[in-house]
Amino acid sequence: MSHSRTVEIEGHIIDSGTMQRCFGAVMDLGGSFDVEQFDVGTHEEAESYCRMRVSADDEGTLQAILHELHQNGAVLEDPSDVALVAAPDDKVVPPDFYSTTNHPTEVRYDGEWIDVERIEMDCALIVDPDGPDGEPRAYTKVLNAVEEGDLVATDESGIRVNPPERPRGSGGAFGFMQGGVSSERPSESTIREVAAELREVKEAGGNVMVVAGPAVIHSGAGDALADLVEAGYVDSLSAGNGFATHDLERSLYGTSLGMDVETLEHPRKGHKHHIWTISEIIRAGGIEAAVEEGIVTEGVMYQCVRNDVDTVLAGSIRDDGPLPDTVTDAVEAQDAIRDQAHDADIVLMLATLLHSVAVGNCLPSTTKTVCVDINPATVTQLLDRGSAQAVGMVTDIGTFVPTLAEFVLEGDEDAAIAEAGENA
Amino acid sequence: MSHSRTVEIEGHIIDSGTMQRCFGAVMDLGGSFDVEQFDVGTHEEAESYCRMRVSADDEGTLQAILHELHQNGAVLEDPSDVALVAAPDDKVVPPDFYSTTNHPTEVRYDGEWIDVERIEMDCALIVDPDGPDGEPRAYTKVLNAVEEGDLVATDESGIRVNPPERPRGSGGAFGFMQGGVSSERPSESTIREVAAELREVKEAGGNVMVVAGPAVIHSGAGDALADLVEAGYVDSLSAGNGFATHDLERSLYGTSLGMDVETLEHPRKGHKHHIWTISEIIRAGGIEAAVEEGIVTEGVMYQCVRNDVDTVLAGSIRDDGPLPDTVTDAVEAQDAIRDQAHDADIVLMLATLLHSVAVGNCLPSTTKTVCVDINPATVTQLLDRGSAQAVGMVTDIGTFVPTLAEFVLEGDEDAAIAEAGENA
Amino acid sequence: MSHSRTVEIEGHIIDSGTMQRCFGAVMDLGGSFDVEQFDVGTHEEAESYCRMRVSADDEGTLQAILHELHQNGAVLEDPSDVALVAAPDDKVVPPDFYSTTNHPTEVRYDGEWIDVERIEMDCALIVDPDGPDGEPRAYTKVLNAVEEGDLVATDESGIRVNPPERPRGSGGAFGFMQGGVSSERPSESTIREVAAELREVKEAGGNVMVVAGPAVIHSGAGDALADLVEAGYVDSLSAGNGFATHDLERSLYGTSLGMDVETLEHPRKGHKHHIWTISEIIRAGGIEAAVEEGIVTEGVMYQCVRNDVDTVLAGSIRDDGPLPDTVTDAVEAQDAIRDQAHDADIVLMLATLLHSVAVGNCLPSTTKTVCVDINPATVTQLLDRGSAQAVGMVTDIGTFVPTLAEFVLEGDEDAAIAEAGENA
Amino acid sequence: MSHSRTVEIEGHIIDSGTMQRCFGAVMDLGGSFDVEQFDVGTHEEAESYCRMRVSADDEGTLQAILHELHQNGAVLEDPSDVALVAAPDDKVVPPDFYSTTNHPTEVRYDGEWIDVERIEMDCALIVDPDGPDGEPRAYTKVLNAVEEGDLVATDESGIRVNPPERPRGSGGAFGFMQGGVSSERPSESTIREVAAELREVKEAGGNVMVVAGPAVIHSGAGDALADLVEAGYVDSLSAGNGFATHDLERSLYGTSLGMDVETLEHPRKGHKHHIWTISEIIRAGGIEAAVEEGIVTEGVMYQCVRNDVDTVLAGSIRDDGPLPDTVTDAVEAQDAIRDQAHDADIVLMLATLLHSVAVGNCLPSTTKTVCVDINPATVTQLLDRGSAQAVGMVTDIGTFVPTLAEFVLEGDEDAAIAEAGENA
Repeated sequence: MSHSRTVEIEGHIIDSGTMQRCFGAVMDLGGSFDVEQFDVGTHEEAESYCRMRVSADDEGTLQAILHELHQNGAVLEDPSDVALVAAPDDKVVPPDFYSTTNHPTEVRYDGEWIDVERIEMDCALIVDPDGPDGEPRAYTKVLNAVEEGDLVATDESGIRVNPPERPRGSGGAFGFMQGGVSSERPSESTIREVAAELREVKEAGGNVMVVAGPAVIHSGAGDALADLVEAGYVDSLSAGNGFATHDLERSLYGTSLGMDVETLEHPRKGHKHHIWTISEIIRAGGIEAAVEEGIVTEGVMYQCVRNDVDTVLAGSIRDDGPLPDTVTDAVEAQDAIRDQAHDADIVLMLATLLHSVAVGNCLPSTTKTVCVDINPATVTQLLDRGSAQAVGMVTDIGTFVPTLAEFVLEGDEDAAIAEAGENA
Repeated sequence: MSHSRTVEIEGHIIDSGTMQRCFGAVMDLGGSFDVEQFDVGTHEEAESYCRMRVSADDEGTLQAILHELHQNGAVLEDPSDVALVAAPDDKVVPPDFYSTTNHPTEVRYDGEWIDVERIEMDCALIVDPDGPDGEPRAYTKVLNAVEEGDLVATDESGIRVNPPERPRGSGGAFGFMQGGVSSERPSESTIREVAAELREVKEAGGNVMVVAGPAVIHSGAGDALADLVEAGYVDSLSAGNGFATHDLERSLYGTSLGMDVETLEHPRKGHKHHIWTISEIIRAGGIEAAVEEGIVTEGVMYQCVRNDVDTVLAGSIRDDGPLPDTVTDAVEAQDAIRDQAHDADIVLMLATLLHSVAVGNCLPSTTKTVCVDINPATVTQLLDRGSAQAVGMVTDIGTFVPTLAEFVLEGDEDAAIAEAGENA
Repeated sequence: MSHSRTVEIEGHIIDSGTMQRCFGAVMDLGGSFDVEQFDVGTHEEAESYCRMRVSADDEGTLQAILHELHQNGAVLEDPSDVALVAAPDDKVVPPDFYSTTNHPTEVRYDGEWIDVERIEMDCALIVDPDGPDGEPRAYTKVLNAVEEGDLVATDESGIRVNPPERPRGSGGAFGFMQGGVSSERPSESTIREVAAELREVKEAGGNVMVVAGPAVIHSGAGDALADLVEAGYVDSLSAGNGFATHDLERSLYGTSLGMDVETLEHPRKGHKHHIWTISEIIRAGGIEAAVEEGIVTEGVMYQCVRNDVDTVLAGSIRDDGPLPDTVTDAVEAQDAIRDQAHDADIVLMLATLLHSVAVGNCLPSTTKTVCVDINPATVTQLLDRGSAQAVGMVTDIGTFVPTLAEFVLEGDEDAAIAEAGENA
Repeated sequence: MSHSRTVEIEGHIIDSGTMQRCFGAVMDLGGSFDVEQFDVGTHEEAESYCRMRVSADDEGTLQAILHELHQNGAVLEDPSDVALVAAPDDKVVPPDFYSTTNHPTEVRYDGEWIDVERIEMDCALIVDPDGPDGEPRAYTKVLNAVEEGDLVATDESGIRVNPPERPRGSGGAFGFMQGGVSSERPSESTIREVAAELREVKEAGGNVMVVAGPAVIHSGAGDALADLVEAGYVDSLSAGNGFATHDLERSLYGTSLGMDVETLEHPRKGHKHHIWTISEIIRAGGIEAAVEEGIVTEGVMYQCVRNDVDTVLAGSIRDDGPLPDTVTDAVEAQDAIRDQAHDADIVLMLATLLHSVAVGNCLPSTTKTVCVDINPATVTQLLDRGSAQAVGMVTDIGTFVPTLAEFVLEGDEDAAIAEAGENA
């Protein structure tokens, strides 16, 4: 890596998370670091100091890394004065203007570090060489206050940011915030990454576990999940009596009795089909028997039977019926779920809090998890409890599963085409 | 309509909403009614009585209608005894078993109406002709309690449901619930219906107004919205400074400066591009000028300029900048929005509470509205305030808009193909 | 009732819910009605007509009722012309100005009904006697557009509102909205009403069922619930293994082992106390035995044992342990809950979706229910499924239960004081 | 600090956040540390090593600290073998049993470190000295699987936890989770801490800024906020036209016109009082004039005028009216808010997303903030953007403000009593 610079960081940089963010930024952006000196404060009041050389393959990447380090309080080893450019017009900033953080900031002017006044996020940084008392002053201005000729700071050299440090001692009610990165990412590209991960796990002979709530069926996503099962992308399914009943109901009434699936969803129709579905499965002796007898001919449960998916239906006090396949004892069900969880390499948690928590309780922290729910609180709760590598998406399950299936299965087609090409 | 039956309904059937639900059910299911007698209780304690003949084109539809009326307390004019069938096995109910509501219920046995004990929803209704005191008894049983030989009620004749009536006088803290139909419908089919409505409005020369929040752009749905604008499906756009800036930022940095749009979304990059975008538009003199100068070459705002869409960008105290096109005075902005709202035949409210409320405040109750947001509270709040015909969807805007655009625009293709066929 | 007026209402007034709202308004506001004529449209296209005399004890109440009826489209039998008053200043409306709805509206001027233009909610209604074409015109103006001298409509006479009617036939994706009254009421007064209801139920010898989730304990509301149990306000408790374990853990570690309850809540401490609590209760042979042995000396479970409260702890696949008292089989637990539910006269559902749904499934629609949760979706889901008389509150359970207990128990004190006074 | 132990930690302990959590735990729990050796991995693949001596005033605190360090992978410098105790009964664990994390774990038995199988959270750790192949084995067991005589690990010595480390390079869709501590703390004690903070700020001559939404008034919390203003605990108020109008409406209709405040809240009454309130304030010439004329005699705005609170009412496109005091231009309003924000030492954000974001945009990261909203997403969004010391509470504003006022003002009473005592 031919492009490199040396930066310095000091303060309570370990316990305030500064070093973690700095090292993380270098690695996330594809650079590397070489720590030249690291003096760790030996007790809670002592500050630490780090000097490291940061490298990247190209100057653009290096600049992106340095930007991140700068935001976290790093300064270049040999700071120069700030670079000032006059604003070309009212409300117009020069290219490469410096955009402020909301942290206390200093600017190096004429060899001296001076404090920036009225600190505020996303502003321009103006230096007035000849302030009211004849001394240079620095302050922020929002874009619409910038006037032609204002001396606007550009780049990041000569500017030092001081992110807040963790208060010494216990903080009382006030938590120490580290500005966690929130996840406003394009939904579709995230689903694409999950699809790629699923394919990788299967190609490596791994095990995929799906935990699914009844909303998967209500929202019309059942067919897409059945497709994934049929294509071999699901090794185990953990769900409840409700999920299975709704899925079977679609199969029974969608094809056997000639009813319109759309009408069947109509809530005015009440729960009669639901109860009757359970009654029919009891009469047949269970789901597998019902598949063999040709009573059930499509859907997620059908594909699970056909493809020997390890399926656990756990009972709950909300259940109608239940189906004969449902494990009504909570301890017995938990043990079955535990076995599934310990075998899994990746777990998809689809629109069910109850079952996802039950599975999450048994998972080692090394298993990858994907949590999808329309309710942000559910996603947060699931991400909080455990996996070290997790994706959370707040979205409609009725669009997530079909999109995921599309991306996973078009990968199969691409692979088939590629293989055909190689064989040709 | 050759299939018909006569039913009777009595009680506080107007102020408890019973008649509204009964008339609604007949119409929703495609039947018709002919009121033969209607005695309205002349004061608040007097009950009302309705006898009407209900007709449908086929027996299936008629039965579906009668089922709904039954759930609301209607009985056939000439009730017969309840039809009882012995349960064929433990936990198995006969076909056409009667599934209970949670309302007080009577059953007609041997010419007498007897009360059903232990009323509970979704149960079987059992009649024991020879109860403990030698009298017939009726009670509910959940499916897993049904025993072989139990006499299970089937169909709905001989069964009378008594839905709760509105308490006389003010109800205190306790609201009177009418069992509103909740909306567990397959998402995709609802989007398809909205797409059809959009196409109809445009074909009839109508006006489509879009109200959009910045999440439309963050979630990657900007391209799909731009496609709808380009295809002529948007007559006016009501948004804020943030929406326009994010959209313009994608155009400026996605193509002009050769940056990867994906990277640009990365929150670590901070707000510098955002501020710089505003600065560049100010320098150009506004969005239209920036389009004409070739600075902005794609996106929603670009298509709005190119297609003469009536656009209002309303300012807010959260804004950065703002853009020169943003109307910063709230009263002035409100007046502009008011003009858009009064011209609209259908309004799409996409992931913005602030702007949607502002638009909703000005809308006549006759304008159709579609509200989409990931937050159920936002959707509820918007539906509550006004339109008589509204669709609410709790879903991810990043999948809603692309799916809507696909359905609307594939309609265009279908039409083109059909036209080509006709011309051929 | 000495004050009365006669109004007329016409249109699809039954199936659009108009009559229901009108009758409801009269009763809610304490008036009475006497229907003089009611012609019911005999089929779905025919309109209905109602003429009724509305009475109230005083003119203020009558006016409030007439206002509500007016909003729903009623007009006085003998309409007069609209009363117009000139605006005294720019942006200032006369007292008693008419504030518009968002429904199509007509105004009677010079004996003729004319349409109001630019209909919008919460505006002033202006009549220009001499419009552009020499004819009188009527239109809305927002407050800040009112000019001195504008002729502003006052009162409601001479104004006719036409609320939207339910579309004939099925409405497609677009639901028919009736402008449901949303519940922005002062929280504290609602809690006070619930407290009064609880006291009434108990005074009448009724049965109070409490369904409680673990958040009741986490949020610090356990003591208040224990107080209610001790004072005899709880007849049955339906909860889960988690609720009981958290409650017992507070008792075990708060008093037996001398630990600070506050520290115990600290999440860093992990789940060890939790597991150990279960282990200790197993060792004792169950909760009742642990109370008798003096291991458990306070809390909700302690008071339930001491006061013979019928308690059901239902198991779930999320449970740790479980406690020996927990019913792990879902069907068995459901049957036990069913018995509790059928005995209850009022049910408090406190911060638990799972258990509340299970209880709600078994409840007759005549049982009063109170649902409290921080999540609006939970409250909505519970209110949707069944009770005819229900209160829903979206609030923090940690403040709801203590406030409720305070109001209920201060009622006891008031009663004791009153009784002491009588005896003196 | 007389009690101390030496621990070792190794791995990617800086960039995985391990050291940050370890230093933090020591300080949070009131201990101190002395780093004896710290070798920092000089590049991204090199591991780091830390040896430090941890001290505390008493053994209990030291053990609590060591527990936290252990959970994060620290081991005592001179590890001994694990301490094993036989389970006294089925499902009963020995006191001080070791409760597992979900991270990969090793146990030291007979001088050797062996891997623990079937890792899962909150389990007992069992060592079988004589496994299937004659070698010792270690594995987890859930409580209900523990059998009498099982050798159960106790304490933490001889057990090594290996928390997951941050993956090298960019993690793709999968974020690296650090198991953030979620905040299930008793609500009331948090409010008490905020009250104490408010009192401290005022005693130190600091500045308190309140940002308030209309829900403060709707929920009945207006009186409590007015009390805080009257007692001098509010220096500046940032709100909108809606907040002020609702507050003034209560004053105007609650006292001037003799109406019942409760009735006034009744949503059926519509918006007429709302509009009329605005009209009356316009007629008076503004809020201050209305207070002086005796038109407004109570409420938050009244107290703000009487106590010279710096008040900014920012306009929005949703506003009715607006009031003459409302700053309708967004840029002008932003500038006024900016001045308030820069003067504040602590900011209370009460049930308003729009105004809170506007204020948050201008705040330096060193200002303390308290965010209260019923919507968790709002609280999360506000905490994410900036302050280094922040409290977030998801709760009902209608109970938060009165409880806060009670705690703050009872402090005044306590102080008065104390002072009276001193003077006596």
